[in-house]
Amino acid sequence: MTDPARLSLNLITADHWGLPEAVERCAAAGIAYVAPWRHQLDGDSARVIREAGLAVSSLCRGGFFTAPGADDDNRRAVEEAAELGAPVLVLVCGPPPTRDLAAARATIAAGIERLLPFAADHGVRLGIEPLHPMMIGERSAIVTLGEALELARRFAAPERVGVVVDAYHVFWDPRLEQELAAATGLVAGHHVCDWLVPTTDLLAGRGLMGDGIIDLAALDRLVVNTGYNGPVEVEVINPALAIVPPDELLADIQARFARIA
Amino acid sequence: MTDPARLSLNLITADHWGLPEAVERCAAAGIAYVAPWRHQLDGDSARVIREAGLAVSSLCRGGFFTAPGADDDNRRAVEEAAELGAPVLVLVCGPPPTRDLAAARATIAAGIERLLPFAADHGVRLGIEPLHPMMIGERSAIVTLGEALELARRFAAPERVGVVVDAYHVFWDPRLEQELAAATGLVAGHHVCDWLVPTTDLLAGRGLMGDGIIDLAALDRLVVNTGYNGPVEVEVINPALAIVPPDELLADIQARFARIA
Repeated sequence: MTDPARLSLNLITADHWGLPEAVERCAAAGIAYVAPWRHQLDGDSARVIREAGLAVSSLCRGGFFTAPGADDDNRRAVEEAAELGAPVLVLVCGPPPTRDLAAARATIAAGIERLLPFAADHGVRLGIEPLHPMMIGERSAIVTLGEALELARRFAAPERVGVVVDAYHVFWDPRLEQELAAATGLVAGHHVCDWLVPTTDLLAGRGLMGDGIIDLAALDRLVVNTGYNGPVEVEVINPALAIVPPDELLADIQARFARIA
Repeated sequence: MTDPARLSLNLITADHWGLPEAVERCAAAGIAYVAPWRHQLDGDSARVIREAGLAVSSLCRGGFFTAPGADDDNRRAVEEAAELGAPVLVLVCGPPPTRDLAAARATIAAGIERLLPFAADHGVRLGIEPLHPMMIGERSAIVTLGEALELARRFAAPERVGVVVDAYHVFWDPRLEQELAAATGLVAGHHVCDWLVPTTDLLAGRGLMGDGIIDLAALDRLVVNTGYNGPVEVEVINPALAIVPPDELLADIQARFARIA
């Protein structure tokens, strides 16, 4: 059984509630962590979360290193993460600007290298999140766990740069087991949801744990074996969740989380 | 420049024409090869193709080893390929029936092993086609070129079992170059189209060559370096093609094919 105390609600799951309401509901439901997205923040968010007695597992997201102005924006993201007390800033690395994927990947590596000292000064660990290969055109040229790990290892500072393992993005990979077996100390976060069959939307077609084909328990064991025992974020992007009554949704998420075993 | 004589039209690209019309149009346009899908065949197809002076590059598709009745259906597919004079039967290996991906992959390997002697007797090479990871739930548990190659290598008979490299399915892979560098003699087919940005449909959102983000020329060089110099199939699944006048579509495909360089 996954320890219920490790559950973090990634707030994109309940984006329609707004951060203050989501925080209040999580606190009432006994959920100990939240992971906000930057667009959900205002100047009061850190106080709201702290006074509700919650901790922040990560901030989503920095990255997009292939876009103009990325450096400034990423430094702001680090500052926001530090203000929230988020130990990790999740990096969605950005799509390739041209057909040259190797060049895009080099741009991303250089961007992380420039951001790293600033993040370290702020006590924020960078978490490189490989996205599903279907998202390469819009969101990330980093599309496999192996590549994210290789990138993280270049900096030889796992406490400063690691990877975020999102079940949805990586479950299909035949190299998953061997990559995680070699990833001790490199996992900075773990996200769960499920892959629905059929999947009809490339971004917002994600399912609640148990409704799809991902062996979340097996993946969790691989992640735990890397030494990661921090919060596990439930991150489900699906417009159908907006019509579920909030208390019912949180209770359902908690029950499904406990059944990952 | 890709040699225009290598162009094969995968007939799913013009599924709405029907096979006899597609064959006639290809012959008139000077296209030397076609690759039909099984649902397009009737008892007369082999004669129609032969009398038009065309050759068949491959038959799509066998596989689905994880489904009941796969063995019988795959033997029929081999017979159909042999009747058409298709040197290759493309294998779309089938989705995982449970959450256990390793079990699904073992089922697929066993299915290929059972089919192999029958295919060899009929002079038909099996071409394991890795599909894009976004298709795992409906179509194939084999989702990387590396895994397809590993599977093909198990049989140690590259002239009987190889892999089909479809640009759309594999272009995102950071291991592409190293996998193909080690794939001498193992490539049984090469398919091209393009990955559009944004991609809004998981099956039928494919683009014509040049409209997307795939470096088709670079991939073609990697494929040619494995020793593959056979037909290159243009396989574009997109309903928008149905409204293009047929002659215009073929001329456009030929021009775009020639520009892959």
